[in-house]
Amino acid sequence: MVKSKRFVFARQFDGPPKESDFELVEEETPELKDGEILVESLFNSVDPYMRLYTRSLSTGITMIGEGCGRVIESKYSDFPVGTVVMHRYGWCTHAVLNAKEQDPQSPIRKAPADYPKDLPLSLLLGAVGMPGMTAYFGLLKLCDPKEGETVFVNGAAGAVGNLVGQIAKIKGCKAVGAAGSDAKVAWLKEIGFDAAFNYKTVSSLDAALKEAAPNGIDCYFDNVGADFTSTVLNHMNQFGRVAICGSISTYNDKDPAGRGPYPFVTILSKQLTVTGFIVLRWFPEWPQGMAQMVQWIKEGKIKHREHVTEGFENMPKAFMGMLVGENTGKAVVKV
Amino acid sequence: MVKSKRFVFARQFDGPPKESDFELVEEETPELKDGEILVESLFNSVDPYMRLYTRSLSTGITMIGEGCGRVIESKYSDFPVGTVVMHRYGWCTHAVLNAKEQDPQSPIRKAPADYPKDLPLSLLLGAVGMPGMTAYFGLLKLCDPKEGETVFVNGAAGAVGNLVGQIAKIKGCKAVGAAGSDAKVAWLKEIGFDAAFNYKTVSSLDAALKEAAPNGIDCYFDNVGADFTSTVLNHMNQFGRVAICGSISTYNDKDPAGRGPYPFVTILSKQLTVTGFIVLRWFPEWPQGMAQMVQWIKEGKIKHREHVTEGFENMPKAFMGMLVGENTGKAVVKV
Repeated sequence: MVKSKRFVFARQFDGPPKESDFELVEEETPELKDGEILVESLFNSVDPYMRLYTRSLSTGITMIGEGCGRVIESKYSDFPVGTVVMHRYGWCTHAVLNAKEQDPQSPIRKAPADYPKDLPLSLLLGAVGMPGMTAYFGLLKLCDPKEGETVFVNGAAGAVGNLVGQIAKIKGCKAVGAAGSDAKVAWLKEIGFDAAFNYKTVSSLDAALKEAAPNGIDCYFDNVGADFTSTVLNHMNQFGRVAICGSISTYNDKDPAGRGPYPFVTILSKQLTVTGFIVLRWFPEWPQGMAQMVQWIKEGKIKHREHVTEGFENMPKAFMGMLVGENTGKAVVKV
Repeated sequence: MVKSKRFVFARQFDGPPKESDFELVEEETPELKDGEILVESLFNSVDPYMRLYTRSLSTGITMIGEGCGRVIESKYSDFPVGTVVMHRYGWCTHAVLNAKEQDPQSPIRKAPADYPKDLPLSLLLGAVGMPGMTAYFGLLKLCDPKEGETVFVNGAAGAVGNLVGQIAKIKGCKAVGAAGSDAKVAWLKEIGFDAAFNYKTVSSLDAALKEAAPNGIDCYFDNVGADFTSTVLNHMNQFGRVAICGSISTYNDKDPAGRGPYPFVTILSKQLTVTGFIVLRWFPEWPQGMAQMVQWIKEGKIKHREHVTEGFENMPKAFMGMLVGENTGKAVVKV
């Protein structure tokens, strides 16, 4: 018997999430049945999409999210004690998972067998996990950046954005990013962005984009949405490709599909292709993407940075902070 | 010497175009130089895009558009007298064209050598011309409709829309269309649409779409834009494809990029791909597309209908009428 804690999604968020929207529950884990494993969380993830997805979920469930942990008890020989796994069982310190009859929509995955010993396991929630795959597949599959093209990403100092810029550089593109503080902008330049600006302090987004991307934008990886995106569309080149990854600027709105500038005339006149995506669509290809990310990290081509919050109890704080941009790099919680 | 008439784009349109925005000019055609041909118009085209494109043009030019005509004088042996050509020299009864040093952006094309004698030449401005290629390439290249999928098109009784639905049927899809009169709806059903409705008289667009496309929409060919499109997006299936062909509902607005519902969150959550296009991007492939359309017409798989206005002087009227939906099928002017 192990004491396990989890956060329950107790109330639908009304505007920015509050501490009181979560409820911390402590329970004893049940005895394992055949095929089950008990996983102890090492790190849990906080990501922007959680704010959006809870809109369509019932309250009372364990708050959603990825975790990485270690098997500490096992009744399934394929997952012996000590196995490091990634799962999507939400905000918890421990989880009893049926590893034998896996949910194909939410499978438990083992850390790659050749995962380097000197890499932090938390990267399994970052560059080598869901955000890494989001940057990798979203950029390469949907934007298909060509050497010499300009790639623009907003939320560029976030978990996904910084990787988008770094992958763009590997592909021979000009990487341009927008972030919300001067320190973040400095970091983006440090990791190789050709241009970056603090969108909160520029005189206008239009002017900043004109200066940072004077030849126009060919590929736009969008984490922000709404007015920001409508402005960026005006700076895109003919046949530009837009990957809609997130729309964080709208997530706290009563109606994220509120009113703003129509993009259709711009999409038409510039012949843009705009694709929204959820990275699970490429799930069968993740192993290849993860292997590539590990290789780039080992070669020093991808730098990683994490914003680590200590202590499971601080998950709501970490989540709320990430939504207002307190993190540089991937936001994780060390359980 | 031939008396030639042309309409000059005399004033920027303010709202719906008016007769007084055009000026009819009569001139004598100059003597031909080497390499030039004199073309007498048989039919001229009026199309929605003209309303949009004039926004970025200077007044004083010949009003833009396609024509098809016959060479009546020639100083270039490649285009002997009698040759039927399609050109983009605007609203004119005669044009002196340099056939030798062609503008690659606006080439003069000969009618296909094997163009059936029993097909009206006006189809070179319709199903076998620009609107036909718009429907053919826009639907097949961007929506990539699969057998059994639902294809929805608005402006469905227009020059492009009716072909979109008919091509969708050839590809084994369910074709659904919206048009602006009961007579148009009846015609759409006659030519094979599985479902069609009059968007002006339905109780709500939402309800009409739900009824006409109960399994959701996989491919959306958009001629209308704005609020119409935002509503349609809500009825699209996961991984749906949207081809933005036109945005006629906004063309008379002061600012066609005015405010409306944000589509980004829907595009994201449904993982849609939205592509704007101008059919000239596939210009090198037009001969293949035209040959296919001719074949389908000969096989009776594509039906054609035209709304013919008689008399060159009536071009502004035909244009204004087309913009408010007076035409069923392709609107052309018999010069």
